[in-house]
Parts: sequence; structure tokens; C-alpha cells
Amino acid sequence: MSDGDILAMKSSPQGMSGLAQSEFEPVLMELISEWLDKYALNGQIQVIACGMVGSQQGWCEAGYTPIPSAPSDVAVTKPNVEDPRIDVSILAGLSQAEPADVMRGEETQIAGFFAKQSDFSGLICMPGTHSKWAFLENGNVVRFKTVMTGEMYSIISDHSVLRQLVNKNASDANAFQKGVLEGAQNPELLLSNLFSIRARSVLENVNSNASAAHLSGLLIGTEIATMKKLMPSDTIKLLGSGVLSELYAEAFAVLGQSITPMDVTELTVLGLHKAWQNLTKEKYLNVS
Amino acid sequence: MSDGDILAMKSSPQGMSGLAQSEFEPVLMELISEWLDKYALNGQIQVIACGMVGSQQGWCEAGYTPIPSAPSDVAVTKPNVEDPRIDVSILAGLSQAEPADVMRGEETQIAGFFAKQSDFSGLICMPGTHSKWAFLENGNVVRFKTVMTGEMYSIISDHSVLRQLVNKNASDANAFQKGVLEGAQNPELLLSNLFSIRARSVLENVNSNASAAHLSGLLIGTEIATMKKLMPSDTIKLLGSGVLSELYAEAFAVLGQSITPMDVTELTVLGLHKAWQNLTKEKYLNVS
Repeated sequence: MSDGDILAMKSSPQGMSGLAQSEFEPVLMELISEWLDKYALNGQIQVIACGMVGSQQGWCEAGYTPIPSAPSDVAVTKPNVEDPRIDVSILAGLSQAEPADVMRGEETQIAGFFAKQSDFSGLICMPGTHSKWAFLENGNVVRFKTVMTGEMYSIISDHSVLRQLVNKNASDANAFQKGVLEGAQNPELLLSNLFSIRARSVLENVNSNASAAHLSGLLIGTEIATMKKLMPSDTIKLLGSGVLSELYAEAFAVLGQSITPMDVTELTVLGLHKAWQNLTKEKYLNVS
Repeated sequence: MSDGDILAMKSSPQGMSGLAQSEFEPVLMELISEWLDKYALNGQIQVIACGMVGSQQGWCEAGYTPIPSAPSDVAVTKPNVEDPRIDVSILAGLSQAEPADVMRGEETQIAGFFAKQSDFSGLICMPGTHSKWAFLENGNVVRFKTVMTGEMYSIISDHSVLRQLVNKNASDANAFQKGVLEGAQNPELLLSNLFSIRARSVLENVNSNASAAHLSGLLIGTEIATMKKLMPSDTIKLLGSGVLSELYAEAFAVLGQSITPMDVTELTVLGLHKAWQNLTKEKYLNVS
């Protein structure tokens, strides 16, 4: 066993959006109760957290560190904790002043990515509700951009005139590919291309699985084409997991680029481990 | 008094989305009850209808007439009517095969516009939930495009991560102008520019009136720039009414073009009158 090995994993459906500030500590303590004796050092477990737990609606606002910055050099904030058996550190996100942009959680994935490929220079794509694209150079995030692709898919499927025409999350490889090409060809026509899905459904009786896949492809194709043009790079890495990262890999392939997604859970753990190393180093430095 | 004069007007909040097929006739009869004796010719009033009343969810599906077509040459469908005191004709919409698109109601506005300017050649913009842009030539609609601008504003304000940041329908001239320019400059970045509204709110404490106006400007600027590029034309007319058409006129002005909106209610009446003339002509032709 060496530093950074995963000894145990837990997850909970109780996330930021459902918890009041005062509920974070008890929910965490209940989740990790069986670890408290097992893994504590000097009676304490060091907890390092990233993501929306550090947002204004989270446990404790952890702020943003401005770029350019190494993704593991973000600020750390410690919430007030009642139970002496835990010592909690929440990592800041990254911010960009112009054009204004923020990320929270993804900086830790990127820190984990650098732990594997410290000399990487180029573009990374992190699909999600709010997809993040970051340009990396010399160990730093030098520029990034958020695209509201996943959220648009969701609110269009649930609330727009297309809601009755799309069978949300259904797949249809052919319709998906058509959507990717249509989006990539004319990304500026997105708001028209969306209506075409309705028009085709009316005029050509397209079924709701195909319409859903077309919508998904249209949004992802629009995103990929726009971001590749905005931040040109010979090298692109895809960081993600599950169905969504497979869809992105498929879309990249439709656009002529073969990319294997890197598992984002593994990268997050690597990034948190890197943050732990930094914190420990600081502690030693403080002591000496 | 001459043909086409408006003798009386009525409106009802009971529209297509709230009525079952069988409810259209009684709702109409109640609305126009006092006209039945007053304006009937030979005991009957001729009713000419356009718009969503002819959709699949309307009174009677009136189909679409394919373009190129004169907007007043659309097909006419007659629903089964029980009351002999009315004779109802529902006008078809227009359809475009490639790229697939449909309009329903706007064809009558365009017919009304041609009644005023029969020799117009160029582009017209009809703002709305689903804005329509049409290229007109030789009295025909030769090409058109729908943009889901109004609906996107609505679902983003109500359902996206921006919902708590925007004070829907609030105005702020400065923020609106900024949004118009941002959208027009990089229309392909819409899904990123949307997220910038959130990022600016987080980083710069932008207030919710400014964010709402920025969102509105961003969407409208994106639409105008894209459509002007897609269908280049020396002449553009704006057909609309109320606050929305004023916003579009303001956005055109920000982009260096002074356009006075033409009142769409007047144009619709002119278009319906044109349809009545066509129907009457046909009747005479049938008789002769």
C-alpha cells in the first residue's frame, strides 16, 4: 500500500442542493462513521473536499483562485467543525476575469490529470451539465470556457415545445451523428436548428427516439466545433465518465477525431491526493 | 366604409392550448354572439381564421402549403360546424422542405404586408416565441427560418441555473446593449455566453435586472446577426407589436440599423381580408 491508494469509497445522494449549511457535518459524519476508528491518525481524519460543497450554497464558501494557476494551487478554506475527529479542508475553484468564467470541482480533476501527465500542453474537454473546456500549458490552466450544453438538453427536453417530441435520453446512433454534423457545420444556427427538430417531426414524422438523439448530437456537435475553433490545439483530452463521455467520444469520432475518455473519478482522487500532499507539506513547513 | 374596414374587434384568453377540438365552436359562438344578427349576410357570417387554430392541437388541422408560395395562396380547410350561422375557413401555414421549417399565422401577416408593399423584395423579421425570418421576392415567400429566441428566454429564465439571477422581463438599456453586441459578435458562442451571465453574477455582483436584460440582448443579438448573415439583404422590415418589437428595434439600432416596427395586428387583418377576397373570388368563379 502506498500514499494515494483508495482504501474505501462511499457516496451519498445527499448533495449540495438538498442540504442546509448546518447539515453538511452530520451528513458527512454519518456517512464515514465506520471509518472514524479505522483510519484516524491521532484520533482525527483529514477530509479534503472539492466541488459545489465550496459554493455559496454549500458547506462553506471556498472562493475562486484566479487563473493562470496550477490547478492544485487553489486556496483552501476550513469550515467550522464541531466534531474534533475530523479536520476539513475545502478547495477553491478557479475563476477567469475576462471573459468571466468559473469552475468548481473540475480544477481538482485537472490537478489529477496533471499528476498523470505533468508535461501536457493542449486542450481538455470535461463534459457535464456545464461542460468545461480548459487550455493547459506549463502545468497551469491558462484559459477556460464553460458551455451550458447538458443543462440546455435537460431544460429543452423538459420544458420547451420539443418536450412532447423527444424521448429524453433515448439513443439512435444515426440521428445522433446527423445532429453532431449539423451542429458542427453551423454552430451559430443552434436556435434555428433546435426548431428544425420540431419541423421535421411535423413534416417527416420523425420518431421521438431519433428526435432526442438528434437534439443531443446537435448540442454536443455545436459545443465541440465551437470550442475547437476557439482554442485550437493539436492535442485534446476527454475527461469524463459514463454514458455522457461515451457520447462525446462518439461525437469527436463523427468529426474525425478518435479520443478515449479518461475516467474522471480516478482523476478526482488523484487531484484530492495532490491537494493532501500540498496541505501536509504546508503543515511540515509551518512546524519547521 | 369600404371592404376591409374593421367594424368591431374581440379577443379571448381561451386559446388553442387550453381548448379541446369540440370546444372551439362554442367558444367562438359565445365570443361573437352579438355580431350574429348585426353583421350576418343572408343569415351567415363568414369566419376566416389563421394561426394555431389550424394546428394538430387546434380546431381542425389545416396543413401547410409548401414554399415558394404567395403567402395568400395557402390552402383552406373547413372544419365541421354545427351552427348554420357561421361558415368557417382555416388558412394553412407554410412549410419549407430543406432545411425543414414551418410557420402558421405569420403567412397571413406577410400577406397583409404584401397588401401594403406588393413589390417588396428582401428580408422580414417577425419576433416572437419562435421568431420567423422570411425572404420575400416577386410576391412569394422563397425561404424562411425559425429561431427559438423567445422560448429560450422563457425557459432559461424559469428553469436554468440562471433563474435565480435574472429578474425576468426587467429592463436595463446598458446591459441589453452589451448583450446584443456580445451575441452579434460571436453568435456561435451562445451556450458559453449564457454561462458568462452566471459567472459575472458570481464574480462581479451584477444585479438581476441587468442580468435579465443582458440575457435578452444576448439572445436577440445572436438571432439578428445570424439571420442577417444567413439571408443577406439590403432591405429589412420588422413586423411586430408591443415591447418585444421595441426591443428588436433597439437591437437593430445597436447593430447600426434604424428600423421602425410595422404593427402586426393591422397586417394580420389585411392578410385575413386578402384571404376573404380570394375565397369570395373562388365562390364567384364556382358560380359562373
